[in-house]
Amino acid sequence: MTDGGGAAARRAEEEEGARMEQEVRRAVEQAKELQDAAAAHVAAASSEEGSIRQRTLALDSSIRRLRASVGAQAGGGLLDPKLAERLEEELQRAGCIVADGDASSFLPAKAQGGFVRMFLGPINVRASRKEVQLKVKEEYNSYRDRTALLFLIFPSALLVLRSWLWNGCFPAFPVQLYQAWLLVLYTGLALRENILSINGSDIRPWWIYHHYGAMIMALVSLTWEIKGQPNCAQKQRGVQLFLQWAIMQGVAMLLQNRYQRQRLYTRIALGKAKRMDVVWGETAGVDGQLWLLCPILFIMQGFEAYVGFLLLRTAMVGVVSEWQVIFCGILLVLMAVGNFAYTVQTLMVKSRFKAKMKSERRSSRS
Amino acid sequence: MTDGGGAAARRAEEEEGARMEQEVRRAVEQAKELQDAAAAHVAAASSEEGSIRQRTLALDSSIRRLRASVGAQAGGGLLDPKLAERLEEELQRAGCIVADGDASSFLPAKAQGGFVRMFLGPINVRASRKEVQLKVKEEYNSYRDRTALLFLIFPSALLVLRSWLWNGCFPAFPVQLYQAWLLVLYTGLALRENILSINGSDIRPWWIYHHYGAMIMALVSLTWEIKGQPNCAQKQRGVQLFLQWAIMQGVAMLLQNRYQRQRLYTRIALGKAKRMDVVWGETAGVDGQLWLLCPILFIMQGFEAYVGFLLLRTAMVGVVSEWQVIFCGILLVLMAVGNFAYTVQTLMVKSRFKAKMKSERRSSRS
Repeated sequence: MTDGGGAAARRAEEEEGARMEQEVRRAVEQAKELQDAAAAHVAAASSEEGSIRQRTLALDSSIRRLRASVGAQAGGGLLDPKLAERLEEELQRAGCIVADGDASSFLPAKAQGGFVRMFLGPINVRASRKEVQLKVKEEYNSYRDRTALLFLIFPSALLVLRSWLWNGCFPAFPVQLYQAWLLVLYTGLALRENILSINGSDIRPWWIYHHYGAMIMALVSLTWEIKGQPNCAQKQRGVQLFLQWAIMQGVAMLLQNRYQRQRLYTRIALGKAKRMDVVWGETAGVDGQLWLLCPILFIMQGFEAYVGFLLLRTAMVGVVSEWQVIFCGILLVLMAVGNFAYTVQTLMVKSRFKAKMKSERRSSRS
Repeated sequence: MTDGGGAAARRAEEEEGARMEQEVRRAVEQAKELQDAAAAHVAAASSEEGSIRQRTLALDSSIRRLRASVGAQAGGGLLDPKLAERLEEELQRAGCIVADGDASSFLPAKAQGGFVRMFLGPINVRASRKEVQLKVKEEYNSYRDRTALLFLIFPSALLVLRSWLWNGCFPAFPVQLYQAWLLVLYTGLALRENILSINGSDIRPWWIYHHYGAMIMALVSLTWEIKGQPNCAQKQRGVQLFLQWAIMQGVAMLLQNRYQRQRLYTRIALGKAKRMDVVWGETAGVDGQLWLLCPILFIMQGFEAYVGFLLLRTAMVGVVSEWQVIFCGILLVLMAVGNFAYTVQTLMVKSRFKAKMKSERRSSRS
């Protein structure tokens, strides 16, 4: 009885062992198959991507060559002007498909700048799909929206508290907290804009340089002595002006964001539109806002330069003789000049483009 | 003659036009084909990736289930112990293939932490190929090597210049430059370590927290008044200690880097090795260096806490009553305690692992 029971138990153990062994063997086999499948997929995908990249590069250069020869032959009178114009248009459309379509994400990435490499190392921050790239841009815009609100609230609160609570003298801590926040914010913006640019967004380099400048200024202003004894009204004049300028910048950022967002929505609505369509949508929908945005931008730039000059004067007169004052003054003036030059340039490009559109429409009507 | 020449010219123009038109049409067609091919490839690759992801997840959970049931049955005496051990080993190997092999890069990524999102937004920083991940890690190590050298040179130069050139008193600018460099460095390290962790590196969270702490301290120390009138020897005692501690940290970083690099080389040499092999390689090759590294780490942690206490005492006695002094003091003490606890924990895990290896080898010999 005991013997038979032992034999049964042993048999049960053996059966259970065999069953488990089989299941485990199956799992191990599945793991090996999965490893092979994944390795095969990686290899196949990368060779396919390589071939698409080759085709894209070849087509890109042949479109370039054709455009050059159409231009040369039209100039030399070897081609009917109307035909030349039509060919030019078709080539432009083909070029846009190559540069903006799904194939474009397989093109070799723009080299990542030193700024991104310094903070992130050699990791690739390029999204391989068009819709992800657009999502990144939209998230950047909503990030800018959130920060623009803080840009209004934070310095306003400091200025209000200064007259209500602090008897006209800023204590050091809240101002330094604000400066630290600015530093983090501008670092984040500069990194995000670099990433956008790597992802094929046509963000202008000047904006990124501007944010580098703002980063450096926030860093320098942190080392700046704020405590205003004995005469804080005089010593903190720079801080006060800086905060007022920051409030204006918040307003300008909110307006710019609305403008940019409308551009992006146009782009998304047009889907995989050709670049020309997108530019057209840009100038078509938001002209009214540009006329509101421009004066505010110019006033802000004037105020930026004014704050810079005041800081420099403070240093010259000798009220505050720290190097930070002179440095921030010069930096602000440079940033204002750069901003102004860049804005004027953008406006000129836009108006030239509009004039061209008008004259083309007139000539097609006649 | 003129008429015939005109007709010939017209004919040449028409021929040229037809030829150009054909070439342009071909380019436009190629662009459309390319667009279709790229879109098809993106769709196919993402569905293939989805299916591999499904399989990986399913296999992962079935391996987990099998391990649990093998353990339960072995515990209940339903399975031969030797068989149970062998099955356990095989399942572990299968689990390592899933977790470390090519399929692992298709698994849903670890959520990117708030720190990375704050600076970079929602961009994906995960490399999809194993060899890229290893390259990122190697670059991180060489970045640490370069910075470790600067970590030695920068504070040493400040300390030497202080006694040779500056008559025992630091001027503010070079010290603030050093602090700004520290801030940039630690921000970069924290970002890179987050990226490594997202890429599946087993970097310990404590090191990342430690670098957050160091970032905050560099930021706070920037707002700290350095100018030491009237009694700079007393007021700058904290700065001096901090620099000495930084030199020691440079030495420790260099040693740690050598240790880490050896681990990584082992891993690369083993190729797509199973996780256990890698851990084995770790403890096997570099034991000697660990015995050099540990005392230095402990001395450094003690010195870190000592600097923290000195700062707190300075604040208590009332020599410097700024909040920055108290804040940095507390932060240094906390970081030292955390470092100590973490190092002890690591050593205990390593020695327990080694003891287990020894006893297993003994039991397999007997």
